[in-house]
Parts: sequence; C-alpha cells; structure tokens
Amino acid sequence: MGEIVLSIDAMGGDRGPAAVVAGIAQSAARDASLRFIVHGDEAQILPLVTARGISGVCEIRHAADVVTMEDKPSAVLRSGKSTSMWSTIEAVRSKEAAVAVSCGNTGALMAISMIRLRKLPGVNRPAIACLWPSHNPQGFNVMLDVGADIKAEARDLLQYALMGMSYARNGLGLERPRVGLLNVGTEEHKGRAELKVANDLIAAAADDAQFDYVGFVEGGDLPSARVDVIVTDGFTGNIALKTGEGTAKLAFELLRQNLMSTLLSKIGALIARGALKKLAARIDPRRVNGGVFLGLNGTVVKSHGGADETGVAAAIGLAAALARSGFQDRLAARVASSGMSAQDDSLDAETAEAQASDRSDTELMGSEGAGDQK
Amino acid sequence: MGEIVLSIDAMGGDRGPAAVVAGIAQSAARDASLRFIVHGDEAQILPLVTARGISGVCEIRHAADVVTMEDKPSAVLRSGKSTSMWSTIEAVRSKEAAVAVSCGNTGALMAISMIRLRKLPGVNRPAIACLWPSHNPQGFNVMLDVGADIKAEARDLLQYALMGMSYARNGLGLERPRVGLLNVGTEEHKGRAELKVANDLIAAAADDAQFDYVGFVEGGDLPSARVDVIVTDGFTGNIALKTGEGTAKLAFELLRQNLMSTLLSKIGALIARGALKKLAARIDPRRVNGGVFLGLNGTVVKSHGGADETGVAAAIGLAAALARSGFQDRLAARVASSGMSAQDDSLDAETAEAQASDRSDTELMGSEGAGDQK
Repeated sequence: MGEIVLSIDAMGGDRGPAAVVAGIAQSAARDASLRFIVHGDEAQILPLVTARGISGVCEIRHAADVVTMEDKPSAVLRSGKSTSMWSTIEAVRSKEAAVAVSCGNTGALMAISMIRLRKLPGVNRPAIACLWPSHNPQGFNVMLDVGADIKAEARDLLQYALMGMSYARNGLGLERPRVGLLNVGTEEHKGRAELKVANDLIAAAADDAQFDYVGFVEGGDLPSARVDVIVTDGFTGNIALKTGEGTAKLAFELLRQNLMSTLLSKIGALIARGALKKLAARIDPRRVNGGVFLGLNGTVVKSHGGADETGVAAAIGLAAALARSGFQDRLAARVASSGMSAQDDSLDAETAEAQASDRSDTELMGSEGAGDQK
Repeated sequence: MGEIVLSIDAMGGDRGPAAVVAGIAQSAARDASLRFIVHGDEAQILPLVTARGISGVCEIRHAADVVTMEDKPSAVLRSGKSTSMWSTIEAVRSKEAAVAVSCGNTGALMAISMIRLRKLPGVNRPAIACLWPSHNPQGFNVMLDVGADIKAEARDLLQYALMGMSYARNGLGLERPRVGLLNVGTEEHKGRAELKVANDLIAAAADDAQFDYVGFVEGGDLPSARVDVIVTDGFTGNIALKTGEGTAKLAFELLRQNLMSTLLSKIGALIARGALKKLAARIDPRRVNGGVFLGLNGTVVKSHGGADETGVAAAIGLAAALARSGFQDRLAARVASSGMSAQDDSLDAETAEAQASDRSDTELMGSEGAGDQK
C-alpha cells in the first residue's frame, strides 16, 4: 500500500495542539503508511512533534492565526486566509493531501470548504454525515445531513441518499447499504410533501446505484438493524443527533448515580467493572469521532471540538480509511451518474463566495452546531 | 376534595380491556375521590369490573365497536360514532367527565377530539405534549408538539409555549416554568425563519404570562435542568421523542448484554440489583405514560398503546392531577388572554369536519405516531 497524506488542523480544538499531535502520534504508530501535513503555530507544534518522535512523518505548515469557536463563518471567509483551518483545506484543494481533519468551528470549516473546494458537479447542498451506534453488525449507522444546511428539497434528499450510501460502502465496507428516509411514520401517506417526493426519487434510484431502499424510517430506527443509512434534512438531523447524545448521557449518569448510591451497589459495580468498562467503550463517542463533509471536491473530516488524543486518532483513522478506499472519486462518479445537473455549476467564484458568506450565518451551524457531534 | 370523574376508553389498547380495568382498579385504590365512566364492550368489561370489586366507582357505557391501530383517522371520523373512543370523548364534550383517557390509535383520537371538542378560541393548531425524563427536581420536562401536526408557524409556536407553560404549572406544579424553543443552535441568528419570529413572540409574551423564556435550546437540552418546557413543531418533536426512546432502549440493552456476558459480571449485577432496579424504575416509560392533547375544549390523555396496568394507572393519575388543578379552564383563560384571535373560529361544523378529515391522513399521525410516546 502506498503512502496516504492527510492534512491536519492542529489548532482550534478545545484541547489545543497537544491533543492533536498526540492523536497523530497514536495514528502514526498504528499505520506506518500515513503522512501528515500539520497546520498551525510552528512554535507550538514543532516541540510537540519532536517530543513525540514523529518528525519523519510530519510536515509542519506554519499558520499565524486560529479560527476560534466564537468566530462567525462569514468573518472567517473575509479575513481567515492566514488561519490554520484555511491552510488545512488548501492542502486538499491543491491535492497535496487526500483528506482534511479539523477539530475547529464547524460553521467556519464548512464555509471555507465550500469556498475553496467547491461543490461537486451535480450537488446542490453539501451534507455532514455522522456515525450512529446501532444494532447492525458494523456497529454503526450513517445519518446525514446532521447540520450543513437547515433546508433540504426532495432532490437534495436524493443526493444525500446517494452520498450516504457511497460513504457507507467505502467507509463502513457495506456492499449493498440499506437506505431509509426519516419521517414521523412509516406509511407512505405521512409526513411533509417534500418527503413524499423524495421517497419516490430515492426508490427509483436504488436499482441503478445498487442499494436497498427500505422507505420511511422513524426516530426509533436510528440505532436499529433495519437500515444502514438514514437520510434527513440538517435541521432534523442535528436535533436528532443531539437528542440521542443527551439521552445517552442522561442514561449513563443515572446508571453511575445508582451504582454509587449504596455500599452494596458499589461492590456489585466493582465486581462487574470489566463488563461496565466494555459497555463504556462500546458507546464511547470518541470511537465514532468524525463527521464527514460530503458533496465537495475533497473530503473533510470534522472531529469533535473537545476531542482528546483518542478522539483525534479515531477521526484520523476514518480519514485514512476514506482516503484508502478512493472514496472521493467514487462519490463524485456516483453523484455525476445520477443524471442530475447542478443548479449553479457555472457560478463564478465571486458569486459562490457571496452565497456561502450569506449562508454561513444563517443556514450553516456555527460553533454550537454539528461541531459537537460524535 | 370533591369527586373527579374521568372518561376511560377500555378498548383499543394492545392489551385489551383487562389491562385498562386493572389500571382503573389500581388508581381507585390509590385515590378514593375518583369516579370512572368506562367505555367499550359491556360483555367484556362488566366481569372485569366485578372481579376487581370496583363496580361502585365505575359506570360502564356500552360501545359496540373498537377503533383499531390500523384504522385511518378519516375513516373513523366517517363511521366511528359507535366506537368506544368516540363515546369516551363524548363524555368530556357533555361535561359528564373532566378528562378523557385512551390507549388507542393516536391519529383517530386526535381527529375525534378535534371534531367533537373543537379547538379552544384562539388556538390554531392543537398540540400533543409529552413528559421527558430530565435532571430537573420535578424529574421531567414537558415537550410539545410531539405529533399532533407536522407544521407549525411562528404564532402556533407561541401558543405551544403558552399551553406547555400552563401544563407545566398545573400538571407538574411549577410556579414559574422556564420555556425554551428547540433549534439547531442557541445563537439568535440561527435556524429557520419562523423560529426567529417565534423567538421574538415568545420573549414578548413571557412577562404577561409569568414564565421565564430561556431562548433557543438544542437537542442536548431536552433532559437538561436549564428548561422545563420545550417548544417545537410536531415533526421535529416526534423525531426527537422517538430518537430519545430508541437511544435509551439501545443503552439499556447494551447494559444488559454486557452484565450478562461473564459469570463475574452476572454476580456483580446480582449484588447491585437493588440499584439497577431503582434505575429501571427511574427511567421506566410507564411512569411517564400520557401524552396530553392541548388546545381543545376538553383535556385528553393519550396513554401508550402497549400500556399495562401500571402504565394505565400512570395515565389516569396524570388525568386526575390535571382535572383537580382546574387545568382546562386555566389553559383556556391563558390562551384567550394572549390576545390572538383564532383564524377559523367561525368555521361551521361541516367545514371543520372536512378540514380535520383531510388533515387526519396527512398531518396527524396514525397508529405509529405519537401513540408510542412515553
């Protein structure tokens, strides 16, 4: 296997460059074919890279500025060219690196990615896909969009189905993914008008694109084994994602409280600690760390803002898997072959910039957005 | 305290009249002031009531037919007048009973309730409110709408805020409930256009209606202690509700699997079983059994279709609490004082019936809808 080059934003995460460099070191130790272009403040990064003994696989690319979690996407587009995030995306744009990874501000990352990488021909709205713990053999389902755009028309939902299916095939190794459309019921007459149209469009596309369409699915199916890819708009997807995270957190806090409530339960918990640790690992959000931006000329993995070493390594592992599978080219071919022409392929750069800039404060989510996904 | 009369649909739940009558008996034993009008097949109900020794507090009202979970709301409106569900709502319409309780088909129950009870003056869209386990002292938050209607305009969301606040005050005993509006971020510039308008409307109404408006909340805040009432449209609310339920179920299935995986963990679980049982009881969906229909001339509690004796008793307990607090009159006064005039108060009965009939197959959720809520 040849070398795989990843572009890593060392700045902008809640834990700073130390956690990112530690994650790189963990990934490098696991996979000798990985090379890294590391973006950020050289004065901080160089000692960390040296101390970890990974200078041989890392090229540090100095960037003076950092996008903070509070920065507005539109402001970053105007004056963010000297940031590590911008530099990280540039290395994918120039084809020096296969995939970009950043722990920073989601809205800003999506805005920069849209402006610099541009949308894939045939794609109207890019999407963010996340992994969702499930009963499936692969352990996860894919859900998209979880926050790139609060709106989605029927044909956007079809594109999400195709992009999510391609991601599941290349990222999770599923030959024939099962795709479902999120709705409030499984009967065909239910739900919003655009969902009924999307239902027909996706069903019609299934044969050609070699996936199984299971029809409408409900919120309760998100962790289920009856579907691999769940398609929804970014508003609903983001609410579902955060609701699921909040519920899981509440459940395990209550478990901890109850197990610590009496001496007897503490003893029981101590005896069962192996099983409880395995459970914690199974649902550890760090293991599924990485939302993927789909529908651009280049793949971008958004790591959780609070990711530690393990979380960063998981995001890098996902990026490496996608790079190795040739995912970006397959996805582009899939979307192109769906026969839909983009509405705005012919936009000049200035118009696109204005559009993204306008969108970034309204439709894209900022620091509190999908950046907090698993 | 005077007698409280509740109207109970004995049919239509997954477990049949036996579970409903058992739930009535449990409630009657707990609260001697309760009286019940029990609707359904007398041949089945009479022996059950006699065997439980609750003939003295139950009046059986025979209804020949049953609404099944598969029946379409529009069909029930056309030909459901002889069903136990219809009869159950009639007893509230005629003011014989204070609150109705049914385990049956949600869509049909909402359709009948809308046609027979009619919307409160000032209310455009009725809503279904559910209770959500939370970190708050009261143990629950209120969320609405979780599935009466897939659409909600800004002024509908304001009405949900007022209705949910009134429910929290009278049902949960919160003097000054904190209300939040569900969105994809907490910044004011984020989210859909109608949410920004609703944000302003609700903020402006807070002082008069004596609640605290905390602004936008996210999916992760649903179980949090920073809000008591979460306002959203029925599409998003239903997805969130089912996502939360599905996630909690997955978490506890994984807990069980892991605890049963080794001899040691089984021993630990056995020793800690008291704490684990307390945990199970804390998140037992039967304890929070009862979605409440708000915005009609009469209160209807929708119990889970699969509710057992304990679940039915919880729904009856909620109905009794609402009846005792004079909730319905307070809610009506609250909505009326909000100064909004209804768009269609002057509809004649025929138009209203056509509207509900049309809506019932599209916007209202059927048997797979919010009926499966906690």
